[in-house]
Amino acid sequence: MRIALAQVNIHVGNFSGNLEKMVAYTEEAKRLGADIVCFPELSTCGYPTRDFLEFDDFIRQADASVQQLAKAAVGIAIVAGSPTRNPRIEGKDLFNSAYFMADGEVKQVQHKALLPTYDVFDEYRYFEPAREFHIIEYKGKRIALTICEDIWNVGNENPLYTICPMDELCKEQPDFMINISASPFAYDHGDERIHVIRANVARYKVPVFYVNHVGAQTELIFEGGSIVMSPDGNVFDELPYFEECLRVYDLEEVAEGGRHVALPKEKYALIHDALVLGLRDYFAKVGLKKAILGLSGGIDSAVTLVLAARAFGAGNVRVLLMPSQFSSDHSVNDARQLAENLGVPYDIVPIESVYHAYEGLLAPHFSGLPFNITEENIQARIRGMLLMAFSNKFGHILLNTSNKSEMAVGYGTLYGDMCGGLCVIGDVYKTEVFELAAFMNKDGEVIPTSILTKPPSAELRPNQKDSDSLPEYAILDQVLYQYIELQQGPKEIIAQGYDEALVRRVLRLVNINEFKRHQTAPILRVSRKAFGMGRRMPIEGKYLS
Amino acid sequence: MRIALAQVNIHVGNFSGNLEKMVAYTEEAKRLGADIVCFPELSTCGYPTRDFLEFDDFIRQADASVQQLAKAAVGIAIVAGSPTRNPRIEGKDLFNSAYFMADGEVKQVQHKALLPTYDVFDEYRYFEPAREFHIIEYKGKRIALTICEDIWNVGNENPLYTICPMDELCKEQPDFMINISASPFAYDHGDERIHVIRANVARYKVPVFYVNHVGAQTELIFEGGSIVMSPDGNVFDELPYFEECLRVYDLEEVAEGGRHVALPKEKYALIHDALVLGLRDYFAKVGLKKAILGLSGGIDSAVTLVLAARAFGAGNVRVLLMPSQFSSDHSVNDARQLAENLGVPYDIVPIESVYHAYEGLLAPHFSGLPFNITEENIQARIRGMLLMAFSNKFGHILLNTSNKSEMAVGYGTLYGDMCGGLCVIGDVYKTEVFELAAFMNKDGEVIPTSILTKPPSAELRPNQKDSDSLPEYAILDQVLYQYIELQQGPKEIIAQGYDEALVRRVLRLVNINEFKRHQTAPILRVSRKAFGMGRRMPIEGKYLS
Repeated sequence: MRIALAQVNIHVGNFSGNLEKMVAYTEEAKRLGADIVCFPELSTCGYPTRDFLEFDDFIRQADASVQQLAKAAVGIAIVAGSPTRNPRIEGKDLFNSAYFMADGEVKQVQHKALLPTYDVFDEYRYFEPAREFHIIEYKGKRIALTICEDIWNVGNENPLYTICPMDELCKEQPDFMINISASPFAYDHGDERIHVIRANVARYKVPVFYVNHVGAQTELIFEGGSIVMSPDGNVFDELPYFEECLRVYDLEEVAEGGRHVALPKEKYALIHDALVLGLRDYFAKVGLKKAILGLSGGIDSAVTLVLAARAFGAGNVRVLLMPSQFSSDHSVNDARQLAENLGVPYDIVPIESVYHAYEGLLAPHFSGLPFNITEENIQARIRGMLLMAFSNKFGHILLNTSNKSEMAVGYGTLYGDMCGGLCVIGDVYKTEVFELAAFMNKDGEVIPTSILTKPPSAELRPNQKDSDSLPEYAILDQVLYQYIELQQGPKEIIAQGYDEALVRRVLRLVNINEFKRHQTAPILRVSRKAFGMGRRMPIEGKYLS
Repeated sequence: MRIALAQVNIHVGNFSGNLEKMVAYTEEAKRLGADIVCFPELSTCGYPTRDFLEFDDFIRQADASVQQLAKAAVGIAIVAGSPTRNPRIEGKDLFNSAYFMADGEVKQVQHKALLPTYDVFDEYRYFEPAREFHIIEYKGKRIALTICEDIWNVGNENPLYTICPMDELCKEQPDFMINISASPFAYDHGDERIHVIRANVARYKVPVFYVNHVGAQTELIFEGGSIVMSPDGNVFDELPYFEECLRVYDLEEVAEGGRHVALPKEKYALIHDALVLGLRDYFAKVGLKKAILGLSGGIDSAVTLVLAARAFGAGNVRVLLMPSQFSSDHSVNDARQLAENLGVPYDIVPIESVYHAYEGLLAPHFSGLPFNITEENIQARIRGMLLMAFSNKFGHILLNTSNKSEMAVGYGTLYGDMCGGLCVIGDVYKTEVFELAAFMNKDGEVIPTSILTKPPSAELRPNQKDSDSLPEYAILDQVLYQYIELQQGPKEIIAQGYDEALVRRVLRLVNINEFKRHQTAPILRVSRKAFGMGRRMPIEGKYLS
């Protein structure tokens, strides 16, 4: 028996596009002699589907897609994901289901039992868990069909769940397992996935065919990296990261094992490629083509520009250099040099004339009051407005260049440098931005070295440096990581030897700036805990504030 | 036996403040001869607690509050809500619990079984449902203790749930029921609550003491309106809406019944009072005192200003009038008249000089291109920037004045009129804003009549009217209500007789503007389905777009 994994890029709500793509891949799989072709979780409607699932009309369209897809299951079986209505009155209205289609019709449906409801996942909001599990018989083979999280409770050892679908399915002695997934990227998630699949293989002694979604849906990036594992625990094959792919496997060969391949998983290469895909897919799926951003001469906008140029091509990106009286010469020169290195067109639009117009208009109201954060913010906001004016006039979408460290502590101006339709590196700490820049420069200087070596500064007042108002990033980022990713409280962090006053100040800054993050663009997620849909904090909470 | 309901305003994460308040109310209840005093759901830590619940340190603080509160339970029993750790390895880490404290210690804990996970609720993200139910014996009485949603599955008829806690508890023959709740306001929710409590009373034949949270937590407003119901189905008492209150009841009198009181529930009075509380609590809980907003001469900013003046007092509110070359004289006059009616200080800051500075700066880049949405947005953004400059300089927090209709269809400028720390009327449709204004004027003109009668206009180009680019609000709002509140799809809405092209255009506008709403301030929720945490739509979704 030959099994095809079709790691495809699905677009939420694009029923006709998704169907067309699956039918085309089915034809290709048939041509390659596959007996079964497997698509990812919720492949008719996309993932995360969110509250679209609450519209009857949307479910009707998903049902229609399943019926259409089933018609293509002639001479080949198709496994695909789609929501199913729960026929019982009790419980949630839907199941998250895997459909098995053959002979032009739906043969069997297996619902998902383990419904992730944490971090970015809201499945219990929509779905009722499966209570019944049955293997599928096809061409003399017995198939255990599971959906994503269903294999993450091996031997019932995951404390979140009390059911283990594979324990149930194994009572019917399957020959192999198919898992259809939509498992989002985090830079350290790849090895964990292999570990979990291996734990399944160790317990159930069957080959596993795991197909993951590839592509980005706003914040969430799905990396693909589908896995075929032999019963001996070897990775028989790992599909590429960040691109669509169809491959066909011979069940006997996989069952025999003895072959081990695994892709390299280097943190900054992964983050780099994930962000490029995140940018490209957001624009493609929203129907946009061109990006604009402000280039300050600092490292954040430099790294963002390199990513954008790689995602869209230099000709589809445009930058503004917007110096003020506080901008250093080297900042303007560095920015210009970078744009020239990349071949990205740039305009220089000095903000002083507009700044003076605001100053004049506000003078009667602000008379006698000293220059302070107000005037710093005005500069940042003029830049935001100019970028938005270009965006509106020429149809370039503004990219936000804030990093995770400044997002965390609120070191940014709302409606100023926090403008933008998508936040590209908002899940990358400042110290990681430096590493990412070094990665970009590894085969030759793309980002001018002087951008990498000068001390970070917002340049909104004379001789300003980030370190005037923030701890050194090397310390700050460690404290932030403990608090955000590891969810440690102040006691635990201080117990590790960090200065108590510093820890309390940093945690307080994170909490009191929730109101700013509430108004930012979606942030491409590359870590286990990003700001955005996976981190839901009260704005008016008094805790640690 | 005498039972006190303490409808208190709890602040999320403010452990010491919440504890102090509960201890003070406990003393007051004791003074009034109560045997038991009841506080709302999760009263130690506040509701919605959101991801604070994922921090061990936070749970430790909640536990410490329970221990402290128990010490106050001398000569009186206390019922209060707090998270409890789940001692089993399997399942979620926490329960959402009601504590019964007496004799200076915790006597019994009853966990919540029905965990709302829809709309604004995420309880399954954090909590494991209760599986065991036991009544509490105290001073010879048998008490059924339930938490909020636990009574919303009377006789197991709510399709969402398969367990009915009161059916279980009634096996132990309780004398009365206490329900501690944190049930957020919607203008049509009050009657439904009475209906549900009456259904409980009809089935279980016991008096019900229902205590609700009062106060606002960012988006969510809790109205109080706690209920005491007799077994005959009469509302023995209904506590006031939108204010703290402690009242003590004699169990025998309540059991006897025959007394019926109920508060009036007039839609616009409720919305008005809810928004005033929402404003007041957001500012108080974030530690702010003063508000600013832009007064255009239109109805949205007029209504927002009246609400702000009532919430904070006219002296704590300040407004800017920012006319451009497109502003009509009557707009400026109307705005000035309104400010004077309310005694709110105003400044006139004409935007033309700054507008011309932008024009000059952009001229070389935009030469030959016609005036379009770009220049309209520049005007809106200059106003946003000026308001933020005053906000930064003087510490007034900017209020956003967008209504639900324009939020829905994206008729607003990001970083312009969409600026602000809190969106006051973003859950009130334009036609409802007119009704709310009429309600404000019912005892004499507060808002000048000419503001109510002129056709809505953004005044960003000559002779512009909203109806140039949008359907009439009377139609638009009906279509939006069907789609947003009732979650009807295009077919269902068109089937009701609305023009197909109009329906498709409106639904498309709603969906493609999700990116704008992603970047708005929190919106005070007064309807069953507000933009914000309770409506989670994909940004890049292709559905109906």
